[in-house]
Amino acid sequence: MASKKITIGNYLLRRLKDLGVDIIFGVPGDYNLPFLDQIEDFGSIQWGNNCNELNASYAADGYARIRGIGAIVTTFGVGELSAINGIAGSYAEMVPVVHIVGTPPTASQASGAILHHTLGNGDFRAFANMYKEVTIAQANLTKTNAVEEIDRVLTQCLMKGRPVYIGLAVDLSDYELNIDPSEIKPLNLATQRNPKDEHEAALEAIIDIVKRAQNAVVIVDACAIRHEMMKKVLTFLDRTKLPVYVTPMAKGGIDENHPQFRGVFSGNCSTEQVQKEIYDADLILSIGSMNSDFNTGGFTYRLSRKKTIEFHTYHTKIFHAIYDKVDMRQLLPDLTEQWPAELVRDNKNLKPFEIPPPALDAKSDAIVHEYFWNKLSELIPENSIIVAETGTSEFGIFNMRAPKGATFLTQILWGSIGYSVGAALGASLAGKKDNRRVFVFVGDGSFQLVCQEISSMLRFQSNLVLLLLNNDGYTIEKLIHGPDRAYNNIQMWRYHKSFEYFGNGLKQNRPQATTGFAGQVKTRDEFEKAMQQAVQETEKLHFLEVVMPPMDAPQSLVLTIEGTREYKRREREGQE
Amino acid sequence: MASKKITIGNYLLRRLKDLGVDIIFGVPGDYNLPFLDQIEDFGSIQWGNNCNELNASYAADGYARIRGIGAIVTTFGVGELSAINGIAGSYAEMVPVVHIVGTPPTASQASGAILHHTLGNGDFRAFANMYKEVTIAQANLTKTNAVEEIDRVLTQCLMKGRPVYIGLAVDLSDYELNIDPSEIKPLNLATQRNPKDEHEAALEAIIDIVKRAQNAVVIVDACAIRHEMMKKVLTFLDRTKLPVYVTPMAKGGIDENHPQFRGVFSGNCSTEQVQKEIYDADLILSIGSMNSDFNTGGFTYRLSRKKTIEFHTYHTKIFHAIYDKVDMRQLLPDLTEQWPAELVRDNKNLKPFEIPPPALDAKSDAIVHEYFWNKLSELIPENSIIVAETGTSEFGIFNMRAPKGATFLTQILWGSIGYSVGAALGASLAGKKDNRRVFVFVGDGSFQLVCQEISSMLRFQSNLVLLLLNNDGYTIEKLIHGPDRAYNNIQMWRYHKSFEYFGNGLKQNRPQATTGFAGQVKTRDEFEKAMQQAVQETEKLHFLEVVMPPMDAPQSLVLTIEGTREYKRREREGQE
Repeated sequence: MASKKITIGNYLLRRLKDLGVDIIFGVPGDYNLPFLDQIEDFGSIQWGNNCNELNASYAADGYARIRGIGAIVTTFGVGELSAINGIAGSYAEMVPVVHIVGTPPTASQASGAILHHTLGNGDFRAFANMYKEVTIAQANLTKTNAVEEIDRVLTQCLMKGRPVYIGLAVDLSDYELNIDPSEIKPLNLATQRNPKDEHEAALEAIIDIVKRAQNAVVIVDACAIRHEMMKKVLTFLDRTKLPVYVTPMAKGGIDENHPQFRGVFSGNCSTEQVQKEIYDADLILSIGSMNSDFNTGGFTYRLSRKKTIEFHTYHTKIFHAIYDKVDMRQLLPDLTEQWPAELVRDNKNLKPFEIPPPALDAKSDAIVHEYFWNKLSELIPENSIIVAETGTSEFGIFNMRAPKGATFLTQILWGSIGYSVGAALGASLAGKKDNRRVFVFVGDGSFQLVCQEISSMLRFQSNLVLLLLNNDGYTIEKLIHGPDRAYNNIQMWRYHKSFEYFGNGLKQNRPQATTGFAGQVKTRDEFEKAMQQAVQETEKLHFLEVVMPPMDAPQSLVLTIEGTREYKRREREGQE
Repeated sequence: MASKKITIGNYLLRRLKDLGVDIIFGVPGDYNLPFLDQIEDFGSIQWGNNCNELNASYAADGYARIRGIGAIVTTFGVGELSAINGIAGSYAEMVPVVHIVGTPPTASQASGAILHHTLGNGDFRAFANMYKEVTIAQANLTKTNAVEEIDRVLTQCLMKGRPVYIGLAVDLSDYELNIDPSEIKPLNLATQRNPKDEHEAALEAIIDIVKRAQNAVVIVDACAIRHEMMKKVLTFLDRTKLPVYVTPMAKGGIDENHPQFRGVFSGNCSTEQVQKEIYDADLILSIGSMNSDFNTGGFTYRLSRKKTIEFHTYHTKIFHAIYDKVDMRQLLPDLTEQWPAELVRDNKNLKPFEIPPPALDAKSDAIVHEYFWNKLSELIPENSIIVAETGTSEFGIFNMRAPKGATFLTQILWGSIGYSVGAALGASLAGKKDNRRVFVFVGDGSFQLVCQEISSMLRFQSNLVLLLLNNDGYTIEKLIHGPDRAYNNIQMWRYHKSFEYFGNGLKQNRPQATTGFAGQVKTRDEFEKAMQQAVQETEKLHFLEVVMPPMDAPQSLVLTIEGTREYKRREREGQE
């Protein structure tokens, strides 16, 4: 009976939908068109036609960071390789993205035909091989393996929180599987149990240490917010009442209005108060740490191993001892439960967490970073999604006070410039159903890599607010090396004409975003007025070109670069 | 003595300059900045700062197709992966491009530090491994291997005519080598001799066959024009007086005013006269063939193996017999020399080569393809470089009569949409010294992927003429599949405002291109006037947005799609 069957394409779509995918990003290509038909006909999944594949991969990543999973479709060779930097970013930063690649007809692959989008050598596996370096699981679907392989890679994607790769031949998406759609069971996403003895030994050792500590603190890092650990972390905090800090990569993971929240820790880039509190602690519970250069103020952490317990996804480290396969997803809940009642902290006399007000030149009206990020914490509404580009923006948000319920998206490890624009589009479409709005901060240099995605924002009726920081060039590069070099300069554009150029108001085939503010702001007053408009007009898409002094930068950026330079110097000396 | 030393970076630059590189494309990133300093200080090599890495790789490819070699610099991870689609295109289409990647400090690589732009797992070889699939040789430079490795990969690049990959750690470009710059000898680029017996046997067999043939013809294809074979081919033609055809990938390889030139052969997409002449021939000498789908009218060649001799770079095929390692670069000159005098053709009575005039609706003033490509052959000046995007444009030029001395650039095998815009920038800067001008044809859909490179055209004072064919969507995709599907529609932009948006006339840090025509043309009259202006104002950059009817397409495209569909049908039936 026809009704008891489902095509490979529809089986994949059904799985994705069940996991939370409402929109699939990508670019059409002749090897994926039959699958795009299926997306269009599926009904409840939108096709998010991007301007190019790299931007599509950024959008899928941004979407996944809000919804827990994202998806992208590209075509063989040209399309998938254009997206590979974005997928590598998802891999590095642990974001679950499903990359579906439309591949040439099965028969042509078997015969080694010299088709367009191939290397001309009959090798149809070259690109899938490349993807092995930047995805956690790969599948090449066939008529017989499709169900098992789809289930296997999607399970890996979610369990490991990393991207996966699915090759779907153009002639197979319509192939009918002998599966009754009404009998499809949810994927089994239960984690493997920790080895019992190691688990119990680790737990016992931790409680023993905890009992002797006078002044323990918690640092929450990247892997805790990516692996859906946050609920478990919050329960743990609630039970223990321990003070908690986040790293730059975990910014927003703990609501900054949480009574135990004490600030952002990033080595030398942290505020003096944060550094003092952390270094004064006699025990550090570090959850999901990722000690990359830009996450640690340029390797300026001074945390002693002898007072640090590290909770990781695949092991636990107590001082110098490693407990292999002891997964924090099981260990932390057990620790929460067994936390000794007498150790629950009394935080009554804790000095409230504060960010020192910026020292501003009262006579100046220039939009300098010290003013800008401070002011934004007043202006951005609760529950917003804040996307910050690699470079000055990612450092700008370090010590910005987050609005209540805010989520932050940055690429502190991978650091692909231009990411924020595509990610903001994805996050904005992901956040719509909960009325969460995106505010995205991107430098002029980074914007130039990906400007065309403004077109997709118009087309998909995004209501995000884009703030383009125009400081006339690659300021972060200038600070690192070659401030007077020509290669750090860029062509000046009429950025604030973006909506107009990308077709705002032109007769189109479909509805378009309504646009609000679109212009330059050069003074604090202009900036604040434009922001107020953008915040009030919640249904509209806004573009603020914020003109800033060229060499001005957030203090955290300057300190991180100094830290990295110092680290490199030490490393070089150690080497020679 | 300091003067008898040279740094690794300068040694590499010296080699590139000697091989013909006057400009290196790319994007700055902190791991390549010291090398960029060296480029800036080198003096005679320009730094071609692109808006993103993919566009830079296209530019390097376009430059290499004109100059015989091109170069690009990117940064580790994010930068190199963004460029990988472009480099894969150079690999597929056999274009010699040198990709130099600035990698993290040697000491950090050795210690496995978690730096930005890494996957966070201490693996510093992942991206170089990926590049093995799409480059012909790779090097990871060290203090001790730099000279040998640079020489080895550059030699491979030129000998094989394919891209190579060079990893240069940020701390090594300044490292001084004990080499006296005045004693650097040119690279040895001599090809290996063919095996003597096989070479002679092949030669003898060919001459034997040739003597019995009444009506031999020559077909010149992709590998002949890429491997600097063209001089040898022209000498061969001059000696034999044989009629010659080119394939779409070799279009422009033979001057269309050459007395023996007879047209473009592409199976069913060829003109009737071309098909009749080829199929009537009793011997086909095929030079450097590349039988890909879009190069063969969708696999509609009907050439009998029993009357075809194939000259290749690494073997020769006479009917069904393969002569391994018999390289056409040596075989063809010997064949030329030994060609029997009595076989030299008398072409006196040959009917001149003609392209039938298009059947046009005299009442219409719409810019349809049949009119457009025909008219262009009158309008484009001699010696121009014509860059055609994948899609309708690449098919449009198939049967267009080429101006004298014209060179054509397309990506018929790889077919990455957007390629033409970056490639045109590269070709335009490459052609400047010989006063060769670029005319580039790009569809609206393809332009959207890469629009920002207009900024680089302004910045680097290109004088090219860009013709954007606005037919409101992915027309080639619509013809292949889903003409009424939403995924084949795109957002309409104000394309003709490109110069303005990308900063034309804004106060900049440096000189900018002077712009000429920038607007829409909707009628034949408007188009011809704008083209005349563009042709006359040779120093200026021009942008013609050519508005065309949405579903109109060149006949060659329609026929190729029909051919491919038929091929797939046969293939599927053969499979089942």
